[in-house]
Amino acid sequence: MINVFFAAAPARWPIYEDALRKAFAEAGLTVDLSLDHAPDQVDYIIYAPNSGVTDFTPFTRAKAVLNLWAGVENVVHDETLNIPLARMVETGLTDGMVEWVTAHVLRHHIGIDTNLRRQDGVWRQEVPPLAKDRRVTILGLGELGAACAKMLVQLKFDVRGWSRSAKSIEGVHCFSGDELDQALTGTDILVLLLPLTPATEDILNADRIALLAKGAVVLNPGRGALIDDDALLAALDSGHLKHATLDVFRTEPLPADHPYWSHPKVTVTPHVASETRAETSSQTIAENIRRAEAGLPLLHIVDRDRAY
Amino acid sequence: MINVFFAAAPARWPIYEDALRKAFAEAGLTVDLSLDHAPDQVDYIIYAPNSGVTDFTPFTRAKAVLNLWAGVENVVHDETLNIPLARMVETGLTDGMVEWVTAHVLRHHIGIDTNLRRQDGVWRQEVPPLAKDRRVTILGLGELGAACAKMLVQLKFDVRGWSRSAKSIEGVHCFSGDELDQALTGTDILVLLLPLTPATEDILNADRIALLAKGAVVLNPGRGALIDDDALLAALDSGHLKHATLDVFRTEPLPADHPYWSHPKVTVTPHVASETRAETSSQTIAENIRRAEAGLPLLHIVDRDRAY
Repeated sequence: MINVFFAAAPARWPIYEDALRKAFAEAGLTVDLSLDHAPDQVDYIIYAPNSGVTDFTPFTRAKAVLNLWAGVENVVHDETLNIPLARMVETGLTDGMVEWVTAHVLRHHIGIDTNLRRQDGVWRQEVPPLAKDRRVTILGLGELGAACAKMLVQLKFDVRGWSRSAKSIEGVHCFSGDELDQALTGTDILVLLLPLTPATEDILNADRIALLAKGAVVLNPGRGALIDDDALLAALDSGHLKHATLDVFRTEPLPADHPYWSHPKVTVTPHVASETRAETSSQTIAENIRRAEAGLPLLHIVDRDRAY
Repeated sequence: MINVFFAAAPARWPIYEDALRKAFAEAGLTVDLSLDHAPDQVDYIIYAPNSGVTDFTPFTRAKAVLNLWAGVENVVHDETLNIPLARMVETGLTDGMVEWVTAHVLRHHIGIDTNLRRQDGVWRQEVPPLAKDRRVTILGLGELGAACAKMLVQLKFDVRGWSRSAKSIEGVHCFSGDELDQALTGTDILVLLLPLTPATEDILNADRIALLAKGAVVLNPGRGALIDDDALLAALDSGHLKHATLDVFRTEPLPADHPYWSHPKVTVTPHVASETRAETSSQTIAENIRRAEAGLPLLHIVDRDRAY
């Protein structure tokens, strides 16, 4: 019997319980899944930051922490965590992100907002440029960023990407390391899909915004703290940036009096770009427990030094 | 010397002249391209319906009419036209259509309009379903419809298609002929990309709208007369349909007092979904003239009986 502790907000339990049980059964695992195992009896911890668990010391025999979300910035620096930590990688999360990013890139590309404002009886026949003439740059070429880049290549956008370590994606002009400024220069639509680490906080600052093409659009479905908010607002007000569509924020829910809500050039989406889906994420979790029980290395393991 | 007559609106001439000359040169053709050849000296006619040409009788030695647009409904029934007629198929037109259709399918899929209305400081975290759980049906699986269907398959939508004659597209559930009602049943997002013929006029009538899923969305980047306008408005008003995004109309420009402009559930886009692009369409025209001069059959030739 493998004891698995579901350490997430209790509201998630009814969404995940059946999906997890089904995935464990399909993986041939005999699991006691519970919200309230005694800590020293727990073998694996399914973890989300709003679970209330802040000290892993009592989980003396636990073999791994399996993060329910893609981002691990709330747990990776926990000094009481001395067992392997796995990020969530699952098709539902990836597919949802590809849909959100592709939707908003195309929205800004063909000018849907302008169309919606112009329902006034005046026939203004302005055909947008083709995707091949629109430069889209994605910062972060992990699971999510790479999947979005590939879809934008299918749509024939001029796609660039940047990541800490060098990557290669067919059809994408990939930059890495100290080539960030080159990746940003002349970008029409910028997509932020980096993990939040000390090295990426405020990565989109005033100097880097200035490198984007005049009239550029910023999409942030990654993490709120990747952006220097004051610099972004200044660039929108100056007209250098045309629009920002933001899904994530330093404080969530975004406070009702935050200037992003009322800014005419900002679209707030309430952290809905993508979320872990119960069915597919349960399969990832079951597979990782199966691997650990078989003595195989975990998938999607977090490098604690890189912090993602 | 091959005499080519540019029979389109004079405003198009500065857009197309250089692109056509370049394409002819690249195809190794020696062409006299003009807006005002004597009719009996013309070898090929590049044609658009707003050219003023309504009688092809004086073009006694012309070998083909090369339509500048994808739709041929304005010329295909001309009884003075007794030489081959080619539709326009070119990558710029196709790419633009794929971008418009994908953009609006995703816009409605993830609920961008709702997001734009909700910039009110209230954090409403409603994650949309995944594309795999959204049924999109495309009527018309010609060059444009097939290209759109393939892109929507890449995005993992549940894609259906219908065409007059049977087609096969990987990942698409293809219906044909008398299976139209099956193709429409339960559809969440309907895309109209049929040619306008006597058989397709008013094809989206009240009975067929009733087959769509409650809350369905209609996109029409095809031809205005494919839709029974009164039936569409009634279905929007009754709530059976959630929205219609319309790019084409029976009368264009759409009159300023037409109810579509002011209807809260209708988005009018002013026939901008896609247009023939000078560079790529000139290559298609040059290739067809090269083929005709070499005694090869024309590409994209119109079947006058089918009317497309």
